[in-house]
Amino acid sequence: MKKFVNNVDNLLAESLSGFASTHQDLVNLHLEPTYLTRKSRQKNKVAIISGGGSGHEPLHAGYIGFGMLDAACPGHVFTSPTPDQMLAAAEEVHGDKGVLFIVKNYAGDVMNFEMAAEMLPFENATVLTSDDCAVINSTYTTGRRGVAGTMIVEKCLGSLAETGADLQTCKTLGDKVNHRTASIGVALTSCTVPAAGRPTFDIAETEIEMGVGIHGEPGRRREAMREADAIVSDCVDAILADFTARNIDVNGEALLLINGFGATPLMELYLIYNTAAKLFSKHGVKISRSLVGNYVTALDMAGASVTLCLLDDEIKQHWDSPVHTAALRWGM
Amino acid sequence: MKKFVNNVDNLLAESLSGFASTHQDLVNLHLEPTYLTRKSRQKNKVAIISGGGSGHEPLHAGYIGFGMLDAACPGHVFTSPTPDQMLAAAEEVHGDKGVLFIVKNYAGDVMNFEMAAEMLPFENATVLTSDDCAVINSTYTTGRRGVAGTMIVEKCLGSLAETGADLQTCKTLGDKVNHRTASIGVALTSCTVPAAGRPTFDIAETEIEMGVGIHGEPGRRREAMREADAIVSDCVDAILADFTARNIDVNGEALLLINGFGATPLMELYLIYNTAAKLFSKHGVKISRSLVGNYVTALDMAGASVTLCLLDDEIKQHWDSPVHTAALRWGM
Repeated sequence: MKKFVNNVDNLLAESLSGFASTHQDLVNLHLEPTYLTRKSRQKNKVAIISGGGSGHEPLHAGYIGFGMLDAACPGHVFTSPTPDQMLAAAEEVHGDKGVLFIVKNYAGDVMNFEMAAEMLPFENATVLTSDDCAVINSTYTTGRRGVAGTMIVEKCLGSLAETGADLQTCKTLGDKVNHRTASIGVALTSCTVPAAGRPTFDIAETEIEMGVGIHGEPGRRREAMREADAIVSDCVDAILADFTARNIDVNGEALLLINGFGATPLMELYLIYNTAAKLFSKHGVKISRSLVGNYVTALDMAGASVTLCLLDDEIKQHWDSPVHTAALRWGM
Repeated sequence: MKKFVNNVDNLLAESLSGFASTHQDLVNLHLEPTYLTRKSRQKNKVAIISGGGSGHEPLHAGYIGFGMLDAACPGHVFTSPTPDQMLAAAEEVHGDKGVLFIVKNYAGDVMNFEMAAEMLPFENATVLTSDDCAVINSTYTTGRRGVAGTMIVEKCLGSLAETGADLQTCKTLGDKVNHRTASIGVALTSCTVPAAGRPTFDIAETEIEMGVGIHGEPGRRREAMREADAIVSDCVDAILADFTARNIDVNGEALLLINGFGATPLMELYLIYNTAAKLFSKHGVKISRSLVGNYVTALDMAGASVTLCLLDDEIKQHWDSPVHTAALRWGM
């Protein structure tokens, strides 16, 4: 394993310190327990808090700021944060409209955020993201996994919260965005967790993992490596089949997110976009919003995921609204 | 080699098609010859054009837009574009204040942009970037290589051009930014050029290439892998020594850019930032602007570069000014 690390035990702390220093106009870093908060906040809004294991950067801390998150709680690499982190973050950022947790559906995250929610002395709600249509249950999951679609939920909920919407209205939009979003990922290589020091899984030069999770957990099946169009076509088909199975009509406008897992060149991500957009169009999907890049990563994994979010006027409005975070910024 | 590619001969075209489709609000893609132009332009400004081999994305096409480039000419992977591309791009975007080429100092790029400059029927100038302090001459270079600092030159010149400044004023600022910028990179792994199908160079699990170029060309020396702080310290020392050798005082404000080469997790880049910022501070450098991410890449290389740009009021003003491109956006 070759990584820019001093001591794996300090990787997270040193990285967060660099993040907070780079983005000192946007965030404050708190230690013991560890969480990050948005620098300028209003009190008369729902506080939007997310968190999860590290290694998926820029998720979640990179999305703290106007129009997105008020706080993020990072666990160690691929490890859930603990309730004391969420409680301290909520205590710090809550206003008079309650707290909304955005939680990716992994057993550890769900358990820890649930414990925090029960202990919180003020009104709260949770939106559980589960956009990964690859598998139902998985290594760390009962039910579908929350993956790249989570950042779309964070963007839309952050936008809605800025308008002063109440907690239930925010929860309803979050659930709707999650419901109207489906993702699937493909790994060409494994990631390497620094503390483990070796690849999470073995994969041959001739193989890909279709439906891989963002921790390198198994997907649908190990397949032969093929040309990009064939792989992307299978991803598009999986997403369309998922919407069909859930009786959701895909005709209409959509946001297409091509997400790199960390080690995939931008050239390849744009090639994937090119193919995926054409294939979705053939099925009546009108791609009217796009995002291509590394937004929800899996450390140094080579691979990518395709996410389709079916827009309506409300989702579109909150996707388009101004945002100012480390990793997503427009309109200001 | 595992990459999201259909046919290596079509990789660039398919990727550019995806890029142009994703960013159709910002750019137009032209074919035969291949170049990209900014969608909304004024005529009463110097036209800023760059280009070079592909594989360094988001450089250069990702920097087309308000406050940065008017056009970009992409060559095939790690291969210079040809004069017909620059001529067509210049013809398309020139106004009444001439054309400024920003060219990374590589023999092929220099030759082709020089040919285009000679053939151009209107006033033009060229800013040659040479921020890499690792080596004097290199595989593809007489003189220093142009690397990540190029995007800082593009940002500042794009900003100045928007003010209606004349060609000579733009050229002078570009040369100044380049003069006040130094970079050095480190590779942990090689990149793989798709058409070659195998890693550009061999490197052991225990080795790094200190001073590597953004095409995987050799740097200063092959070294033993060490902890991140020791590697970063050597990078910082190399940059400080370069400014000293060029009689440039580093006391004052600076922009610190930690650039990933394509396969390095953001966690590690922020850790590098954390260390580099502290080390520079000890030498009287006041880091007042920061950028961390994949801005000038080398395909799928694991590694990173450190760039320091010494600010003055003029450079700071043009770095801070609004920009709206695919890969860099703030203030609008």
